[in-house]
Amino acid sequence: MSSTRIVCFGELLLRLGAPGNQLLLQSPSLDVHAGGAEANVGVSLAHFGHDVAMVSVVADNPLGAAVTGELRRHGVDTGRVRRSEGRMGLYFLTTGAGHRPSEVVYDRADSAFASARADSYDWPALLHGAQWLHLSGVSPALGLEAAQATLAAARAACALGIKVSFDGNFRPKLWERWGGDAKAILRDLFDCAHIVFADYRDIGVVLGGEFPQADAPARVDAAAAMAFAAFPRLQYMTCTQRTTHSVGHHSLGAMLLGRDGTRAVAPQEELTDIVDRIGGGDAFAAGVLHGLIEGLDADTTIRFGLAAGCLKHSIPGDFNPVGVADVMALMGEGKFDVRR
Amino acid sequence: MSSTRIVCFGELLLRLGAPGNQLLLQSPSLDVHAGGAEANVGVSLAHFGHDVAMVSVVADNPLGAAVTGELRRHGVDTGRVRRSEGRMGLYFLTTGAGHRPSEVVYDRADSAFASARADSYDWPALLHGAQWLHLSGVSPALGLEAAQATLAAARAACALGIKVSFDGNFRPKLWERWGGDAKAILRDLFDCAHIVFADYRDIGVVLGGEFPQADAPARVDAAAAMAFAAFPRLQYMTCTQRTTHSVGHHSLGAMLLGRDGTRAVAPQEELTDIVDRIGGGDAFAAGVLHGLIEGLDADTTIRFGLAAGCLKHSIPGDFNPVGVADVMALMGEGKFDVRR
Amino acid sequence: MSSTRIVCFGELLLRLGAPGNQLLLQSPSLDVHAGGAEANVGVSLAHFGHDVAMVSVVADNPLGAAVTGELRRHGVDTGRVRRSEGRMGLYFLTTGAGHRPSEVVYDRADSAFASARADSYDWPALLHGAQWLHLSGVSPALGLEAAQATLAAARAACALGIKVSFDGNFRPKLWERWGGDAKAILRDLFDCAHIVFADYRDIGVVLGGEFPQADAPARVDAAAAMAFAAFPRLQYMTCTQRTTHSVGHHSLGAMLLGRDGTRAVAPQEELTDIVDRIGGGDAFAAGVLHGLIEGLDADTTIRFGLAAGCLKHSIPGDFNPVGVADVMALMGEGKFDVRR
Amino acid sequence: MSSTRIVCFGELLLRLGAPGNQLLLQSPSLDVHAGGAEANVGVSLAHFGHDVAMVSVVADNPLGAAVTGELRRHGVDTGRVRRSEGRMGLYFLTTGAGHRPSEVVYDRADSAFASARADSYDWPALLHGAQWLHLSGVSPALGLEAAQATLAAARAACALGIKVSFDGNFRPKLWERWGGDAKAILRDLFDCAHIVFADYRDIGVVLGGEFPQADAPARVDAAAAMAFAAFPRLQYMTCTQRTTHSVGHHSLGAMLLGRDGTRAVAPQEELTDIVDRIGGGDAFAAGVLHGLIEGLDADTTIRFGLAAGCLKHSIPGDFNPVGVADVMALMGEGKFDVRR
Amino acid sequence: MSSTRIVCFGELLLRLGAPGNQLLLQSPSLDVHAGGAEANVGVSLAHFGHDVAMVSVVADNPLGAAVTGELRRHGVDTGRVRRSEGRMGLYFLTTGAGHRPSEVVYDRADSAFASARADSYDWPALLHGAQWLHLSGVSPALGLEAAQATLAAARAACALGIKVSFDGNFRPKLWERWGGDAKAILRDLFDCAHIVFADYRDIGVVLGGEFPQADAPARVDAAAAMAFAAFPRLQYMTCTQRTTHSVGHHSLGAMLLGRDGTRAVAPQEELTDIVDRIGGGDAFAAGVLHGLIEGLDADTTIRFGLAAGCLKHSIPGDFNPVGVADVMALMGEGKFDVRR
Amino acid sequence: MSSTRIVCFGELLLRLGAPGNQLLLQSPSLDVHAGGAEANVGVSLAHFGHDVAMVSVVADNPLGAAVTGELRRHGVDTGRVRRSEGRMGLYFLTTGAGHRPSEVVYDRADSAFASARADSYDWPALLHGAQWLHLSGVSPALGLEAAQATLAAARAACALGIKVSFDGNFRPKLWERWGGDAKAILRDLFDCAHIVFADYRDIGVVLGGEFPQADAPARVDAAAAMAFAAFPRLQYMTCTQRTTHSVGHHSLGAMLLGRDGTRAVAPQEELTDIVDRIGGGDAFAAGVLHGLIEGLDADTTIRFGLAAGCLKHSIPGDFNPVGVADVMALMGEGKFDVRR
Repeated sequence: MSSTRIVCFGELLLRLGAPGNQLLLQSPSLDVHAGGAEANVGVSLAHFGHDVAMVSVVADNPLGAAVTGELRRHGVDTGRVRRSEGRMGLYFLTTGAGHRPSEVVYDRADSAFASARADSYDWPALLHGAQWLHLSGVSPALGLEAAQATLAAARAACALGIKVSFDGNFRPKLWERWGGDAKAILRDLFDCAHIVFADYRDIGVVLGGEFPQADAPARVDAAAAMAFAAFPRLQYMTCTQRTTHSVGHHSLGAMLLGRDGTRAVAPQEELTDIVDRIGGGDAFAAGVLHGLIEGLDADTTIRFGLAAGCLKHSIPGDFNPVGVADVMALMGEGKFDVRR
Repeated sequence: MSSTRIVCFGELLLRLGAPGNQLLLQSPSLDVHAGGAEANVGVSLAHFGHDVAMVSVVADNPLGAAVTGELRRHGVDTGRVRRSEGRMGLYFLTTGAGHRPSEVVYDRADSAFASARADSYDWPALLHGAQWLHLSGVSPALGLEAAQATLAAARAACALGIKVSFDGNFRPKLWERWGGDAKAILRDLFDCAHIVFADYRDIGVVLGGEFPQADAPARVDAAAAMAFAAFPRLQYMTCTQRTTHSVGHHSLGAMLLGRDGTRAVAPQEELTDIVDRIGGGDAFAAGVLHGLIEGLDADTTIRFGLAAGCLKHSIPGDFNPVGVADVMALMGEGKFDVRR
Repeated sequence: MSSTRIVCFGELLLRLGAPGNQLLLQSPSLDVHAGGAEANVGVSLAHFGHDVAMVSVVADNPLGAAVTGELRRHGVDTGRVRRSEGRMGLYFLTTGAGHRPSEVVYDRADSAFASARADSYDWPALLHGAQWLHLSGVSPALGLEAAQATLAAARAACALGIKVSFDGNFRPKLWERWGGDAKAILRDLFDCAHIVFADYRDIGVVLGGEFPQADAPARVDAAAAMAFAAFPRLQYMTCTQRTTHSVGHHSLGAMLLGRDGTRAVAPQEELTDIVDRIGGGDAFAAGVLHGLIEGLDADTTIRFGLAAGCLKHSIPGDFNPVGVADVMALMGEGKFDVRR
Repeated sequence: MSSTRIVCFGELLLRLGAPGNQLLLQSPSLDVHAGGAEANVGVSLAHFGHDVAMVSVVADNPLGAAVTGELRRHGVDTGRVRRSEGRMGLYFLTTGAGHRPSEVVYDRADSAFASARADSYDWPALLHGAQWLHLSGVSPALGLEAAQATLAAARAACALGIKVSFDGNFRPKLWERWGGDAKAILRDLFDCAHIVFADYRDIGVVLGGEFPQADAPARVDAAAAMAFAAFPRLQYMTCTQRTTHSVGHHSLGAMLLGRDGTRAVAPQEELTDIVDRIGGGDAFAAGVLHGLIEGLDADTTIRFGLAAGCLKHSIPGDFNPVGVADVMALMGEGKFDVRR
Repeated sequence: MSSTRIVCFGELLLRLGAPGNQLLLQSPSLDVHAGGAEANVGVSLAHFGHDVAMVSVVADNPLGAAVTGELRRHGVDTGRVRRSEGRMGLYFLTTGAGHRPSEVVYDRADSAFASARADSYDWPALLHGAQWLHLSGVSPALGLEAAQATLAAARAACALGIKVSFDGNFRPKLWERWGGDAKAILRDLFDCAHIVFADYRDIGVVLGGEFPQADAPARVDAAAAMAFAAFPRLQYMTCTQRTTHSVGHHSLGAMLLGRDGTRAVAPQEELTDIVDRIGGGDAFAAGVLHGLIEGLDADTTIRFGLAAGCLKHSIPGDFNPVGVADVMALMGEGKFDVRR
Repeated sequence: MSSTRIVCFGELLLRLGAPGNQLLLQSPSLDVHAGGAEANVGVSLAHFGHDVAMVSVVADNPLGAAVTGELRRHGVDTGRVRRSEGRMGLYFLTTGAGHRPSEVVYDRADSAFASARADSYDWPALLHGAQWLHLSGVSPALGLEAAQATLAAARAACALGIKVSFDGNFRPKLWERWGGDAKAILRDLFDCAHIVFADYRDIGVVLGGEFPQADAPARVDAAAAMAFAAFPRLQYMTCTQRTTHSVGHHSLGAMLLGRDGTRAVAPQEELTDIVDRIGGGDAFAAGVLHGLIEGLDADTTIRFGLAAGCLKHSIPGDFNPVGVADVMALMGEGKFDVRR
């Protein structure tokens, strides 16, 4: 395990999914997975050999214990996950096929995490020993307390010289529910970030402006330039480009742009026979963070990130429990026959 | 199908249970059943051949649709089940064994049903054509709106000459959550009832007083006398007596007392190899109501009710999807060998 | 729910299928679904919000009760489904993959439905309140009594001014078993129909003649012209065009032709990653009927029908339990990414 | 494997059972087992090391192939099982619990076996090399052809000096269906038998007469005396005595009576936590036959038979796939702790 | 979590079990659980809130990773579990019922643990910070290297003032396989122990001698006296008394004897409807250790141990993932009805 | 069944696979299949109607019995499969998807088969009545005894005029484990063969030399020429050409070359939606052997072999339980729609 400690802060969720390709409750059984955008990143980083600790609040009941146990199973330190009154956030998933897209029904309102008071977190203690803090735009969208807690975490990290990784993850529906000022809060969070996982749409939300460029990469280039200008701490912006040909067939490419002029592009991979697309972006984020932490060059970093993201699409559940060697094998010559 | 229409009003719930004898989330799968105290009664009555309609509010999502569909599958008219914003009430069940009791984790706060405005129900329309209205003490315990809706339903039934069946189902934890005046509200509901499913503990809550009699039947007798005195509309009080020798072995008897001096006792049955105890009381209630509706004598009625309740203990899920013939077979000579 | 009532008449079947991609009884478990060509149409129409009633005969045993309950779960009125002596029709399904086609083993001989006397149906009562009657060519193929019952239903509908929808569904093996005069009987049924789901092969069976045109659409045009000439009541003929590239990859298009010169064509969709092809034609039929009932224009109608049929290929089981909004979403811009 | 060859003749059935303690089709899945009274005996004898061949007729489809393969898996020679037109006999099982008895729904009419012509069996060839022929009273109850085939088999065996083992298995419902003369046909079969598995009720059917003795063993003694008098070839009569205290708790004892005055009694065992009672009688029969074939003394034989029958109650499915050592272990000191 | 650290040393195993009450591979599926006598104790102690670290060697493959992950999930520190060449030890389990005992087929020879060199363990480092070391008699039985490693662990602990807990767990078959001198090696291990889980049979193996006392408790008393005399470091000897009435019904009591004259007896509990008996002894051991660590009085300690052991019989798998509150609830008035 | 008897010699294995697309032990369940390269060929040939006998050694425990029973179920004579001390060879399979290849973890060391003494086989008796002996290069790679046994089998067959079929199946990792002289031993085996399943890589291992030809068929031609020159008994060499576009999409073609100048090529088929690739080569081998045994022409033979191999990719498990008619259907016009 590396000596780099990454702290992830965010909500832990339970996914309750219809088995196979069934519609939700078509038969009376649900498959269960643990998830949560930031936890997904943490689990990946733990499987890549890093020292990862989760900061979160879960329900003080068997559901909260189960999710926490799953994180531990995947090597994440859960000593900073607090149990409290309230319920676990849930989401119900119907996995699509053919012409039928996957559908998520969220049932996460009033969760123990969303209800936790912002002042209930002692950030200097929770961030002790960390080199990185990973956050996402989902947390501040959950309500005022969660937004303030996320901001407090980011600011504490800045103050302590801990690098902040921020995944935009803009969720307008969640923001609307409590009427939060997404633009202002996200702007403050971008302002603390060393790296953002964001594309031109996120930058448009945070900084305003439009990106009339014809092709997506050009829009990302323009957005990155705007972001580097607006946020002096920001060193990297990275994102994927996804094309959904059908429910089971996507193309996925990625870009990594640096304040120093770095511009690395991983060409699109064809993802066929997709098993589970949820968590693909988090797997990508973890791959890029791994590259930065390990000091890989930009090109290797973005290719590692994309390969990690691609692998996730073949694995059921929100987590991407693959090691560095698994990802490297995919970046190699790509033999697809049985490994014995 | 009989020409008697029974309307049931109450919350519909989804049960998410650990498979077999596993602990909750010991393996990543949950078995799903529909339930709800009043719906359980309704489903039984529909299987006994009566014309049953449910009045409820469910989430306007696939979970709400699934529960409603399950009721329909069992022959309950769901045309009066409304879809609305909000979530479905859930409960998570771990089925016990040996020395380990079953455990329920409720996750029903802020459900679409609990959140429904009391004035959103048009009772004269909803009760149209009904001879009976079945309610339970769970609904008013869910919050002010639900309590007012339940009272309004009971009063409308009284005004329309519809007989009210009320299952005490006292749940102190739920009442405490919103600080409702359980005693006053339940008293008003008892006051509308033609029959109450209640024992001396319920009467103690509603009317105060203690029951120092040494044996349980004597306490029930005393409580019934007090109830008949306090509630002039009340014609019957009935309850089971359960002794839990172990998780899988209970004894279950029952009594039916009438204002007219009726006193019928069904002797205790030994319930071994219990499969699922949830809904046993509702199955009993449905059996007794069937007896009253069909005009069976008191002795047959209480024996039918107890037999229905016993059968439920052998069936997974909250519902008791057995017909009159199944119950009668059990009341007969009780052959336990394979039926071919 | 719309005020249009559709009555469907036909046999209800139980499908017993090998799980996943297994061969039949490769492992000792079978997945069960309810089905039947006409019931499949009825379930779809109920999910589209129409008032659907099934007329059928099922075995008076738990299998018959289970199938009936499934129809009810999907919102179909089963008050006109009769229980009787006899067995349920079954079929065993092995779902194919890759180079291995799916296989059906029928076990439906001597079913309660096939054995029901033609004179046991009181059609004026069974059709009471209906605007539409849906029939298919499977029913008359089951035997003399079933054929006579189907004819009686069609004729009663005609006499009552109820529109008859008839799905050709020509099954030579079934006709051969009892030696029925398929041509004559089907001709009489076509003669009652307002709309037929049929292509040039069906018309060839019923009216004789060959269709030497080089391309399929031209053959359908010619067959429709012949049909409109032969059957003065007939207003519409519609069919799909399917190309099976492999077990999991089909192309599916559709045409709707009207006596009034209507000619609407829905271009072929590529169906990849097919989950379950059974019931695809019935889902299409329901979609087209929905368009006619709702008075949609011909182009929207045939596109709605095709989209409904496409969706079915992604859903396990014979039924297509999707709503109007689900189908419309597919007819829109066709986003295939996760819906949250 | 012993040098004794036993031929079993009878129908092969597929059991389709509700999983666990569920009601039939409560959830949409069925567990499948192969069975059939005579096949159950054959499988047991094969596991006891004997050379067993089945004579039967199965459907020429994947269901017939699956049942045949299951017999082969258990070591039974299926070279004499013929494939033919027609369907497989099925039965649907709901496994009871507590107060709810198990229920069988038969769906075996018009099976390939029942439809097979009596003259389609070449008994001298089919019995070639056999020392024993095992038959049961189920086969002749299936129809005229099956009855004649069973009689022909029994007579051919007698003529060839092959010992006939006959399990009474009187099924009045099946006889009534085709109006067969059960008494006459069974009498002819008893007349060929070396050993009958029968108690006083079977003898009453075949020979008339009543058994007014107060206790069951005395009735069996009297019936055996009558049988030995009526059937000069008969050497042994044996049966179990079962008391069903509840669905999951039976007592089971057994008796073996010989023409030579042999009278061996195995005292009742308490069967608790019964897993699957189907096939218990067949397992007992196989145990007794094993004792006779191996020349064990009467006392050991009946105790071995009873122990085999008891073991079956702990094993899911119709077969009793246990070896001689497993049965002997149970006859020993009966240690019930984990075997490592 | 308490400040007491317990190190457990022993092999980790994968259990592959037949589902439900099936025979092994009766259907083609296996349920998987992690286990191992010492790990079972460790997992229990972690659930009781202690700081537990496992020392072991697992295969460097997905099986080894899975078992390690399971330990982590249950809160055990796996930082001292080493990956190495070799295979994982497996065992196959058939869960008994009624008259059929459970059966274990071991497949643990040549495991990575058994093959690990004794000198590959750095005991002072591995025991760093520990107050307790838990060992069992299974480890030295696995081979010379494992025996030497176990002895080295025990001696290092003694030298460091760490209390040694030793569970006799005498397995003659394993010792015979490599011809180890069980008596001598076990004697050396007993000599290091602060507490032994052992009864008179274990003491007989280690110290020779017979225990002619008529009742079991007296034999245990005598054996303990002999043990305290022979092993000056030994402070406690404790054991259960099990009577196996049937596969699903045992009686279980326990005794705790101290060098200082302590003699605490927990009266027998009736264990009916046993779900899984494996790991019952380990759960008991963990309960007793919890009492000693927490300084509970002897009577509470042995009752806590027995209650923990009883609970285990109701839980599938080798582990006993219950908390202190769960055990205390069972020691209370023992209400067996549903907990809500 | 044909009158040709084929004896297959090799190890029987149990496959323990993660369900669906899960990672190994992602959920606690394993699907079990029987396998083994030579057994796979035998099962196919038995389904093609030939008289197949397996020679092998299995563990004398329920695992060995289960694998043997599975072979019997598929029609293979297991009378020559010996039970002995030792363990069953296992392998754990994770089925890949998308970008993630399938992975096999072998756990077959020290199996009963690998440990069996070479002189424990009585080849003249074991080969009695056979026209063919099928072997593969896996067996000699397992160790010295297994290598000597394989050689003895091949030589005995040669001496008895039995045709030897040899599948190269070169497994360098297995050879390295015991340091066997693969080249020499395989050369001796090739020298006995009538047909080898091998391509230029196998010939390179056995005869040395390189194949610099640009395209694969030319390399195979050159290798075959070299093989026919080196091995005078060899009449045929055959192999597939596989291209793995992705985990779920391969192209598969095949060639059959004869000493007499025969050169038949089956053009590549596109294998999409691959269900299970394991055993594809064995299914091909069985198909080619069927052609040779039945005397089909070379072109039909190689097309039959390729079609059999293609079908296998659609079937879960190692076996290819399809009949001649199934394969012929695929060689026909290839209709992929549902077969009714």
